[in-house]
Amino acid sequence: MQQLMAEAAEVAFAEARAHGVTRESVEAVVVGILNPAEFLDEGNSASLITDFLGLAGAAAWRVETASSTGAAALHSACHAVAAGRFRTVLVLGGEKKSHQDTAQVTARLARMIDRSERRMGATMTSLAALIAEYYRRAHRIGPEAFEVMRGRVAVKNRRNGCANPKAHFRRELTLEQFSASRHVSTPLRLFDCGPISDGAAALIVTSRRTPLRVSGLGHATDTQALSRRSHLAFFASTRRAAAQAYRMAGIGPSDIELAEVHDAFTAIEIMSAEDLGLFPPGAYGAALQAGRVDPGGDLPVNASGGLLARGHPIGASGLAQVIELSRRLGREGVRRGGPPRRGVALSMGGLATNNLVTVLELEGASPPDDGAPLPAVPEAPQAPLDAPDPEGGVVRASTTLFSPPAGFEGPLHFALVEGRAEGLSRTVLARAPRPVEAEERVRLARTERGLFIL
Amino acid sequence: MQQLMAEAAEVAFAEARAHGVTRESVEAVVVGILNPAEFLDEGNSASLITDFLGLAGAAAWRVETASSTGAAALHSACHAVAAGRFRTVLVLGGEKKSHQDTAQVTARLARMIDRSERRMGATMTSLAALIAEYYRRAHRIGPEAFEVMRGRVAVKNRRNGCANPKAHFRRELTLEQFSASRHVSTPLRLFDCGPISDGAAALIVTSRRTPLRVSGLGHATDTQALSRRSHLAFFASTRRAAAQAYRMAGIGPSDIELAEVHDAFTAIEIMSAEDLGLFPPGAYGAALQAGRVDPGGDLPVNASGGLLARGHPIGASGLAQVIELSRRLGREGVRRGGPPRRGVALSMGGLATNNLVTVLELEGASPPDDGAPLPAVPEAPQAPLDAPDPEGGVVRASTTLFSPPAGFEGPLHFALVEGRAEGLSRTVLARAPRPVEAEERVRLARTERGLFIL
Repeated sequence: MQQLMAEAAEVAFAEARAHGVTRESVEAVVVGILNPAEFLDEGNSASLITDFLGLAGAAAWRVETASSTGAAALHSACHAVAAGRFRTVLVLGGEKKSHQDTAQVTARLARMIDRSERRMGATMTSLAALIAEYYRRAHRIGPEAFEVMRGRVAVKNRRNGCANPKAHFRRELTLEQFSASRHVSTPLRLFDCGPISDGAAALIVTSRRTPLRVSGLGHATDTQALSRRSHLAFFASTRRAAAQAYRMAGIGPSDIELAEVHDAFTAIEIMSAEDLGLFPPGAYGAALQAGRVDPGGDLPVNASGGLLARGHPIGASGLAQVIELSRRLGREGVRRGGPPRRGVALSMGGLATNNLVTVLELEGASPPDDGAPLPAVPEAPQAPLDAPDPEGGVVRASTTLFSPPAGFEGPLHFALVEGRAEGLSRTVLARAPRPVEAEERVRLARTERGLFIL
Repeated sequence: MQQLMAEAAEVAFAEARAHGVTRESVEAVVVGILNPAEFLDEGNSASLITDFLGLAGAAAWRVETASSTGAAALHSACHAVAAGRFRTVLVLGGEKKSHQDTAQVTARLARMIDRSERRMGATMTSLAALIAEYYRRAHRIGPEAFEVMRGRVAVKNRRNGCANPKAHFRRELTLEQFSASRHVSTPLRLFDCGPISDGAAALIVTSRRTPLRVSGLGHATDTQALSRRSHLAFFASTRRAAAQAYRMAGIGPSDIELAEVHDAFTAIEIMSAEDLGLFPPGAYGAALQAGRVDPGGDLPVNASGGLLARGHPIGASGLAQVIELSRRLGREGVRRGGPPRRGVALSMGGLATNNLVTVLELEGASPPDDGAPLPAVPEAPQAPLDAPDPEGGVVRASTTLFSPPAGFEGPLHFALVEGRAEGLSRTVLARAPRPVEAEERVRLARTERGLFIL
């Protein structure tokens, strides 16, 4: 890990030299790493890595926010520099876990989701599948059309990965291969899901004047349990974080010319680009089809290959997104209509429980247009959690998980069930004894392991 | 854990109301927690706790710097507020690990020290014992006098703990009991060492004007391995962090009227108070004897009971120190010469690998005096690490560890051995086959498990 981070830091130092920033300028080091205790049998990581880099003496701290850790480390460094506390801060993010057993890694990563939902056998993939289905139905997208949309995301990001020498996957994928890949949790297939990667990223934040500026920061959380969320058709945390970041930058979503969004799953790219206001809700499918988000389109999304192809070394991903933006801003051929000068990155912690938005701006960006409206987060009072309708409720989305977590056997069936109580509705996660369909009316029973469809 | 943190947060909210700060004012939550993955089988802690507190939506991130985690969380919150990023930030620190097997907890905490030194069988206590001995000899303090000094720290902090309703230990200790307690790692006895505690702390940082101000922040690291340190008679990281904090506050150490320092071991309180410049190097023994650092003295140190008596819930300790200061600033009877108005807290990550200093100031503090000089960190070029003198070196400090870590048997003997190479000296950690004495000349052999005395 230290070696991976040191390699990334050397690249950052080499590039920073042109701006008068050297290794000796570093006054603090912020380290983003998810779980060094279990993945690496290491503690005291911030000091350890700082010492390894020959920077012992500098302040050093570790930041962690689940899978958005790299972005949170960057934001923490930005706060310290903006406060005048330090002039130059090195930000490192990284993860090394491929040396461990995949089942063990998966179990450890599953801690990002709610304990009660884990107890039911839910995994990150199955919850993402339910959210994807909920989104699809909210926008009246047919299952086949949705598969093509998701496939287009996978194909685009794999193609983009081929052009990125640092990508995890550098082989193209066809729509046919996508659709032929096995279901992990319906409708999500193997090629809907990002890989588990090793890797590191490094970036230097400085108060010196450089052509590149972090102009907007946004950060918001949501409930860990899906059963407690007010909104399931979009991610409130992304919308809130985006609103903060655009406000700080003094721009609107229509001023964004390049985006890196957290595509741990294809469907998450679709929803995220819409939650960022880059496209109206439900409109990403058309943008994909028209090639607008391809390299050379008017708003390339995940030109780096994204998490799907570049990979997802957890502590690094959020930081790598910003680095990927920085490498493309101002470059010819990146987008139609001239070099991009304003980019946005969205990093997601857990299933949108801890999301960070970063706006990056290159000198000479055009004056803000601020035309497009921001997607809002409507107030949504919910029925009490402990009062499910005794009559049951209606299935709003369902999934069958084919790779159950340790301790569970065979395919597991889950549904998001909307019930009513005290004149309000609430949608909760429930296990089902069989595949259930949307619009099906079901009865629920509360057990020690959670809600079950009878 | 969430429950402990929530209880602490409720106290903070209740007290903040007087300053116009409510639960609804909280825009971000910073969580200090050491190792929730292994101690609590939990991940995504920052969102988890924020959600548990009913604050889902707010930004949230976790900060970790080994045993100074609570202080680092506070500093991160201060950066965010000082940068204008958030107006009001809730800082939480906590740890819950007493439900686990002590040997397992100890092994997990041992990751704070260098991997190569762990491989030799060294533990935090044995390294602290070596540093304590090195300090004692550097100041020509006799072993008996040193035992009395350390005993006075233990007796004072235990007595202070009796007055603190939140303390882990609320029973007095006599010097006789101290000296009768078993050696853990010579010269350190059981009562030289702080406990493993559960607990939580909460504090609110706001940009609103309140009578209490964080006026100084300092933060510095040192090498993880003792064998690579430039200085062993004092902690360079504390001196550097103190210099930063005093400079930011525009004060000198003589302006401090109250201190909470990281007394994970008695000897560390002694060294830390001196490294903070509160007393000249080697002078803490006299201050203890004269009662100057007792409650009612002119500069009470660890009036809360410190880590030794208040306890050491790792993620909380550094934050709790600042809260303890805040509770005593402005209060009658705390010190001789009027209520204290300026306090300093020192929190230590690992064995002084990641140290943070915080200066807290109450409205109406007297103008800075800035008389006392700060203890400096002299340049100290060292011999290369990989060139131990073939003739061996001279023992500068030694310890016998009676509670070896898992995988080791019987008492283990360690020494800090000073050797010379290329005209420079370097002091390294070595295992010995028998107890060795300071000033003994020894020969060293490099093995796979580290340096061994022949």
